[in-house]
Amino acid sequence: MSIITIVGAGMMGSAMSIPARDNGHTVRIVGTHLDREIITHARARSEHLTMKRTLPDGVAYYQIEDLETALAGADAVICGVSSFGVDWFLDAVIPHIPGGVPVLSVTKGLFDHADGTLSAFPDYYTEKTGGRLSFSAIGGPCTSYELAERRHSAVVFCGHDPAVLRKLKAMFATDYYHVSLSADVLGVECAVAMKNAYALGVTLAVGAAEKEKGVGCPPVYNPQAALFGQSVREMAAILRYVGAGADNIVYGAGDLYVTVFGGRTRKLGTLLGRGMPFAEAMEELSGVTLESVVIAGRLVGAVSKAIKAGKLSKKEFPLLMHVGSLLRGEAAGGIPFERFTTAQFS
Amino acid sequence: MSIITIVGAGMMGSAMSIPARDNGHTVRIVGTHLDREIITHARARSEHLTMKRTLPDGVAYYQIEDLETALAGADAVICGVSSFGVDWFLDAVIPHIPGGVPVLSVTKGLFDHADGTLSAFPDYYTEKTGGRLSFSAIGGPCTSYELAERRHSAVVFCGHDPAVLRKLKAMFATDYYHVSLSADVLGVECAVAMKNAYALGVTLAVGAAEKEKGVGCPPVYNPQAALFGQSVREMAAILRYVGAGADNIVYGAGDLYVTVFGGRTRKLGTLLGRGMPFAEAMEELSGVTLESVVIAGRLVGAVSKAIKAGKLSKKEFPLLMHVGSLLRGEAAGGIPFERFTTAQFS
Repeated sequence: MSIITIVGAGMMGSAMSIPARDNGHTVRIVGTHLDREIITHARARSEHLTMKRTLPDGVAYYQIEDLETALAGADAVICGVSSFGVDWFLDAVIPHIPGGVPVLSVTKGLFDHADGTLSAFPDYYTEKTGGRLSFSAIGGPCTSYELAERRHSAVVFCGHDPAVLRKLKAMFATDYYHVSLSADVLGVECAVAMKNAYALGVTLAVGAAEKEKGVGCPPVYNPQAALFGQSVREMAAILRYVGAGADNIVYGAGDLYVTVFGGRTRKLGTLLGRGMPFAEAMEELSGVTLESVVIAGRLVGAVSKAIKAGKLSKKEFPLLMHVGSLLRGEAAGGIPFERFTTAQFS
Repeated sequence: MSIITIVGAGMMGSAMSIPARDNGHTVRIVGTHLDREIITHARARSEHLTMKRTLPDGVAYYQIEDLETALAGADAVICGVSSFGVDWFLDAVIPHIPGGVPVLSVTKGLFDHADGTLSAFPDYYTEKTGGRLSFSAIGGPCTSYELAERRHSAVVFCGHDPAVLRKLKAMFATDYYHVSLSADVLGVECAVAMKNAYALGVTLAVGAAEKEKGVGCPPVYNPQAALFGQSVREMAAILRYVGAGADNIVYGAGDLYVTVFGGRTRKLGTLLGRGMPFAEAMEELSGVTLESVVIAGRLVGAVSKAIKAGKLSKKEFPLLMHVGSLLRGEAAGGIPFERFTTAQFS
């Protein structure tokens, strides 16, 4: 059995303790400076404060001051921070991780560079640390709530070292946590990032129906399906653009499916779909900066730059461009369904 | 303005009267011998008996005996029969359609041949009529109920004659009925057919959750998303196998999305997911032979034959094979999530 140290006590990082403990590993969860209450609560009650799910017996909890103790002898480290915590993790945590210990990140998102290219967090970490550690990441459709309930969940661990990926799979895979492996890091991370933008796109239809029929009206699916199909088309085009394998659309579509059904991304898409301006919608969501919005904005930014540079055609991305307009607070009009139509005679 | 004759007063055929009338065309709906009550009811009340939606003013209704009258001067014919009515349409209707009048079919489904190849209805009609008429068909995610409510719906008209397709689009496209065009008939029809099998696959997770937590339990999405992602993977492989364009996955995924949310395919998948044997589930569904089940069975048959002939690998289709086992009434065990995992290092 191994020692697994999870740094960052957010919902997904903490939920990883469940398959890890079910496999009999020693598990330590270290809160960041933002997680103090979560750690105190978990210690007292074996429950995650915000996820409101039981955490497994036998997990040891640490405040950030005890990071070194928590990392001692670790066989693997889970990076459990959100994309807002990436640089903190790089500065405050990575220097304390002994060489050779694999790091598996639950962080979602991509960096967009000035020229419209995108890079993934594992590659960013590798670049910043000069290859001292091996970084892998988790993609695929998996909400922390349902992982904590031991629901069947299909994920993908991506990284550049197959031996490390196999080792990590052996640590975490259970009869409910199903782990694929992929060396296509950018493809997987791109799929993860894209779903944030397109989940806003699909849920616009929920709000548009409410605008017409009143909040709480029965759901309508033809418009959602039109948006879902268009999302798949645009996501496939983005995967081609970044040079990722076409199979990553599996993660993109699966992750989009799960994201459409709940959480704050759906709520925001619904409000925008009702015609509420972005600033007002964010206020309604208590002003919390949604990670999904930041990631969606980066994707819009990267694709817009690539369009400007002539590497992509604007006509291929009517939905993403519409979502981008809404996120910039522009009065973008209705969903541009007609621009989704194609004529393929070749 | 044109004269459009819809033959077959099922829900989808009848719903086509709505965009047609909104565009100002003369519309005639002819019931088959199975539609007598629908026609009588529609005449009296301008409402569709089974769809329970208002039909537009000005539609003329005909019983099958008046077929010739209804076809006189028609500029286009909608074939509104289900796949069970294809040979009837061929024998009883097509001989009465004047040469040069385009036929647009709402019929879903494919034929599977003894060697595992598949063909689409428009091509079947063309073959049987020696090219006397031009046949096109409608695919894409569109339920008749929501079309009747004028919800935004994205469809695709497929056929081999671009001029005919453009003419049909001009007749039916409205500001809510969004029509793409495609010459890839087999690809579109394959997408339409596949969603029937895979909607059963995705909704197995609904039943599996109910088995564990009780009927009516809150939905769980990680398992559905795993099945949705795997469906996209297998559908893409089937499209490659039949030589269809990869873009058809847009219709496959969109149509799967809309089918998962309602109707009897979802109900059947849910019952099978609870562990109910196929025969018992069909009894619960009042013994009505579901078109979707027949189509799913054909797809399973075609893929199985192709596997036997060494043209496809069984390992690529764990979900379709599982659905096939359930449809044959075999005790297939749980959903084979672990067989969906992949390792891609190339």
